[in-house]
Amino acid sequence: MLALTPVLVAVVCILILWIFKAADRSSETKKREPQTQPWEDEDLKDSTDLHPVEEDAEEQQESEEHVEHIPFSHTRYPEEEMVKRAQEFYELLSKRRSVRSISSEPVPMEVIDIVIKTAGTAPSGAHTEPWTFVVVKDPDRKHQIREIIEEEEEINYMRRMGPRWVTDVKKLRTNWIKEYLDKAPVLILIFKQVHGFAANGKKKTHYYHEISVAIACGILLAALQNAGLVTVTTTPLNCGPRLRELLGRPPHEKLLMLLPVGYPSKEATVPDLRRKTLGEIMVKV
Amino acid sequence: MLALTPVLVAVVCILILWIFKAADRSSETKKREPQTQPWEDEDLKDSTDLHPVEEDAEEQQESEEHVEHIPFSHTRYPEEEMVKRAQEFYELLSKRRSVRSISSEPVPMEVIDIVIKTAGTAPSGAHTEPWTFVVVKDPDRKHQIREIIEEEEEINYMRRMGPRWVTDVKKLRTNWIKEYLDKAPVLILIFKQVHGFAANGKKKTHYYHEISVAIACGILLAALQNAGLVTVTTTPLNCGPRLRELLGRPPHEKLLMLLPVGYPSKEATVPDLRRKTLGEIMVKV
Repeated sequence: MLALTPVLVAVVCILILWIFKAADRSSETKKREPQTQPWEDEDLKDSTDLHPVEEDAEEQQESEEHVEHIPFSHTRYPEEEMVKRAQEFYELLSKRRSVRSISSEPVPMEVIDIVIKTAGTAPSGAHTEPWTFVVVKDPDRKHQIREIIEEEEEINYMRRMGPRWVTDVKKLRTNWIKEYLDKAPVLILIFKQVHGFAANGKKKTHYYHEISVAIACGILLAALQNAGLVTVTTTPLNCGPRLRELLGRPPHEKLLMLLPVGYPSKEATVPDLRRKTLGEIMVKV
Repeated sequence: MLALTPVLVAVVCILILWIFKAADRSSETKKREPQTQPWEDEDLKDSTDLHPVEEDAEEQQESEEHVEHIPFSHTRYPEEEMVKRAQEFYELLSKRRSVRSISSEPVPMEVIDIVIKTAGTAPSGAHTEPWTFVVVKDPDRKHQIREIIEEEEEINYMRRMGPRWVTDVKKLRTNWIKEYLDKAPVLILIFKQVHGFAANGKKKTHYYHEISVAIACGILLAALQNAGLVTVTTTPLNCGPRLRELLGRPPHEKLLMLLPVGYPSKEATVPDLRRKTLGEIMVKV
């Protein structure tokens, strides 16, 4: 009997050890779960890519260092004209507003082509041009996009607002009903290519892809405003993978932004917001 | 003697348990270490903030839903003019290139003010305008910025290229020597405010701050090109915290981009790159 005790103690100890390990693993799993804030986009974690591509260790040899250099040609304006041009461009862009009430009237598609070409002049990390602009005109496709986005938005709002808001449904509905997705004659969905492909089929890193594509979107917004079209900059929460599949885009492309584009509807209103002054956004050293 | 055995076994078991736990902790620490790719910016993890600010759980009540709405006023052009305006803007921006050889000739500071005001018209998540533009003209300060950036760049290149490149120092030096940081009459450092402050001093979430600030940078690049100034879009790797401290910016501001701005030097060259065609960047549905 006494001889059995050490064995018993050993078994108990191993049991304790095993329980501790198990508890540890589960707490670790919890730690690794995405701590998503309500406004954080789960799309950035979209991993519907079933065939991961191998990375190319030699890729730096493909860099732009080997490209021939040519003289830079520059148009210089007299100082007075620089100020005038800058001021006119400021006045044009200061009138830009996010417009959610868009008329269904068609827009000239030639203008859409040109503004997207303009966005494509943006700089990008190592000149990778990691953007795809998907232009949707087809009413059925637009409606499918709307359904996906409204479904996800409803979930987002419910989750974010919690039970104290759920009774006030009428007020909330205005937040997730996106009529402009059906009405706007054109939707532009902007995808960032999180990597590219080298000549040998391996992954090619896209340096700073998100920043590059957002810069291109800034230029696109300026080009739309310059052409007399309106839009609203939207980042549909968590809809990326479904929209990507709907539009047949490959897994290395992730949705960054969606712009419904058109003319403003006659009854369009905008919130009476002020912008920060120059003194509030600029510091001189 | 036999009675001591259970105690001994228990001690051994507890020892084993303790060793396992310790090993686990150290492997966990390793897992948490930043798995930084050479081009990934450690600044995004800059946590020199010693006084974390409490988050405001009630902040959604401060949203723009409560702002009065006003009619939207819109300038509409005839179709022909829309195409012409779009085309002219495209041609202007298609001439933009990243220019690294910048003349030391001063630029009109009024133009700098206006282009930054223009960047400030960008849309931002929940109209938070999460940007600070730091304009550096002072030669000493510019030189300090250069020293910080070249130091970090040298480390980055060495780390990235590995030993096989280290002998070829002469070739590499061109990569981390940033003469334009001294020469350009103006440096614009763009900081993103990763959060703001509510009236009660608590943290106010800045939705999509990085995308918003990058959009503003896109508009800034367009405005500079329109005014006849050149720049190169740089994202100084890992220099954010040091540059932030040098410029006296608060911890909730993180460096996103640095633009040296001026006229091109007479001998400026650019790589003979082509841009993707419209067909390569646009898909119609």
